[in-house]
Amino acid sequence: MKAEIIAVGTELLLGQVVNTNATFLAEQLADLGIEVYYQTVVGDNKQRLDELIGLAESRSELIILCGGLGPTEDDLTKEVTADHLGKGLVQDREAYQKLLEFFETTKRKMTANNLQQSQTIEGGIVLPNRTGLAVGTFIQEESHAYILLPGPPSELKPMFIEQVRPLLIEKFPSKEKLISRVLRFYGIGESRLVTELAELISTQINPTIAPYAKPNEVTLRLTVKTNDIHAGNQALLALEEKIQERVGEYFYGYGDDNSLEKVVVDLLKERGKTVTAAESLTAGEFQATLGKLSGVSEVFPGGFVTYSEETKADFLNIDPQFLEKYGTVSQECAEKMAEQARKLAKTDYAVSFTGVAGPGMLENQAVGTVWIAVASAEEVSATKFQFTRGREAIRRNSVMEGLNMLRKRILRKK
Amino acid sequence: MKAEIIAVGTELLLGQVVNTNATFLAEQLADLGIEVYYQTVVGDNKQRLDELIGLAESRSELIILCGGLGPTEDDLTKEVTADHLGKGLVQDREAYQKLLEFFETTKRKMTANNLQQSQTIEGGIVLPNRTGLAVGTFIQEESHAYILLPGPPSELKPMFIEQVRPLLIEKFPSKEKLISRVLRFYGIGESRLVTELAELISTQINPTIAPYAKPNEVTLRLTVKTNDIHAGNQALLALEEKIQERVGEYFYGYGDDNSLEKVVVDLLKERGKTVTAAESLTAGEFQATLGKLSGVSEVFPGGFVTYSEETKADFLNIDPQFLEKYGTVSQECAEKMAEQARKLAKTDYAVSFTGVAGPGMLENQAVGTVWIAVASAEEVSATKFQFTRGREAIRRNSVMEGLNMLRKRILRKK
Repeated sequence: MKAEIIAVGTELLLGQVVNTNATFLAEQLADLGIEVYYQTVVGDNKQRLDELIGLAESRSELIILCGGLGPTEDDLTKEVTADHLGKGLVQDREAYQKLLEFFETTKRKMTANNLQQSQTIEGGIVLPNRTGLAVGTFIQEESHAYILLPGPPSELKPMFIEQVRPLLIEKFPSKEKLISRVLRFYGIGESRLVTELAELISTQINPTIAPYAKPNEVTLRLTVKTNDIHAGNQALLALEEKIQERVGEYFYGYGDDNSLEKVVVDLLKERGKTVTAAESLTAGEFQATLGKLSGVSEVFPGGFVTYSEETKADFLNIDPQFLEKYGTVSQECAEKMAEQARKLAKTDYAVSFTGVAGPGMLENQAVGTVWIAVASAEEVSATKFQFTRGREAIRRNSVMEGLNMLRKRILRKK
Repeated sequence: MKAEIIAVGTELLLGQVVNTNATFLAEQLADLGIEVYYQTVVGDNKQRLDELIGLAESRSELIILCGGLGPTEDDLTKEVTADHLGKGLVQDREAYQKLLEFFETTKRKMTANNLQQSQTIEGGIVLPNRTGLAVGTFIQEESHAYILLPGPPSELKPMFIEQVRPLLIEKFPSKEKLISRVLRFYGIGESRLVTELAELISTQINPTIAPYAKPNEVTLRLTVKTNDIHAGNQALLALEEKIQERVGEYFYGYGDDNSLEKVVVDLLKERGKTVTAAESLTAGEFQATLGKLSGVSEVFPGGFVTYSEETKADFLNIDPQFLEKYGTVSQECAEKMAEQARKLAKTDYAVSFTGVAGPGMLENQAVGTVWIAVASAEEVSATKFQFTRGREAIRRNSVMEGLNMLRKRILRKK
């Protein structure tokens, strides 16, 4: 089956927003074995959108439209698609109820244009929006299927994964199954990973190896097309073994829906251990990253943000003379911060961060110099990093290295 | 003039790469007053690319192709465009020389396919590649102009800015300039903002008003097309006044490169004031958000992450019986947290967050119940919020409301 992605929105044509929805949908469709030959962006314009749907019908069987389901006059996708198919729009009762409740709970005034959001195309399947208000629609005509998705990625992604994927698998079953496995790596760049695996990648046809660079990590998606699930899984396993032999030291976990912080929190839960932090340049980002995960309260009671020299002394009960002697961007300071935080929070582990996020130097040390320490009851040790690429990257890289150091420390104790 | 952007590359269709080139080019073209009605992505396929160029010619006068200028067999853009125009490819001597030098300096073996990179379409203007090897081409036929650019953003961007922009201004001089101004709003949804301004939006032609919903805020871009910069600015000012009359209470700042946290930190700097925080459910995200801004150390010495009841008592020196009596998700607790944090960090202001991020209830209170308090020397007060849409949104909304409460408190004292 051939699919085509149409992103609707003048903000995309003006370059105000990056079209990450197309990327996400393309990746998902590739994973489902559905071929995509075209992606198009068009503005909030009835005639051009209508023409484009016609053009897409001449080239593809599945047409996915995203954006333009919201409450404003510019949001035309539902209306234009319905007109194109000669159908009307109808209110979805559940979505309408949710809309009313939202405005009641948040005590905001609901204006009439909001009703657009709970409308769907008659004869279509409603796709409820778990993370927003505008419902999606799946509608199948004789030779074509159409899927309408909301524009905000935070609504489009869960709707696709939770509802559209199962629907596509059900409606358009593929004779061959695709089985895939995602391996996640931290601490190695994409180009180096690809170089290390060059021979494997160039000789592999089925399963295939698809590397993908994400912020701060690289994933490999191994995909096998097969009629025989057992044999397919065996092939994936054999391929993974070869990959682990070559780059296993950077591997940290499996799965699309995984992350270094999730692996760390799961490890702590498994072993009944707790962690705290004392953060200088990262200013709370390490703790906020742990805080993303539900149930983190089991393993994380709280911690400290000690940005200034004074708060390092006051909050962590460190002698100001000690800070004076070694400087705050030092191994000694990082280790002391971790030790003190661990004692004060009464946890098994503590991670500390101190360094120069920039833009200016600090204590005569270059921007990007960062000390990270991990403390446990038995041991405290710090590592020095030299990061580049500006304030945001320096802080983000520090958080990721802190997570990785903690992960390795936990794993060392069997 | 109408332009159209065609990005060529199977990696884009597979979702392995985000199409940031289209965003960059769209923004640049908007800035030059050139209208873009379509952006398309197509794979490394001769026939489909050729057809798409034909389609683009039927809709637009300027066609910008990016990607597919490299040395591999998949790189077809130059060849297909030349064939489409009935022209041949010729070697550019300078680019060829640069290619030879590159392989000599890096001591790498130059394979024959590399010669593709220094080829250009006959009759075209060569666009040298300062940051790479593959040259671009500008070629003008009777009714259409074509621009071929390399795919890597690090090559495309400088080539566009340094060479294509001046060329477009010279070849297609625009009589009118575009001047725009961005207004930012917090605390009002896009649909309500648009409703409040409905009359203005529907009657405005020049300047135009473009609303845009971003995470947690809405922006309005006012754009005027004019020959007279002074008159244009006057028109923007007059329009802004009308907007401020209607929704000014939600306005917080100007500009594309602005944010609520930036406005707050700038206000604190201006007035020589400092802030700290005590965060429960947000787990450091408020402080990390302040920490994004360089120079924040002037106004933020550090603060506390008190996720558990015990750390609220220990770190903030709050009597456990007090927490027992009122519960941690309460006005009393929020206010006490802010007061204690302010005392311990010796700051002018403190913001505290306590509530239920979910997934489960806490102290019999619903997911999304959040108390936020702001303390200063004179006053401490807390506000209760009821957020929806899951853990991440609850935490993010809490941080934004905390910033906004702090902003209003600072502004109240002239």
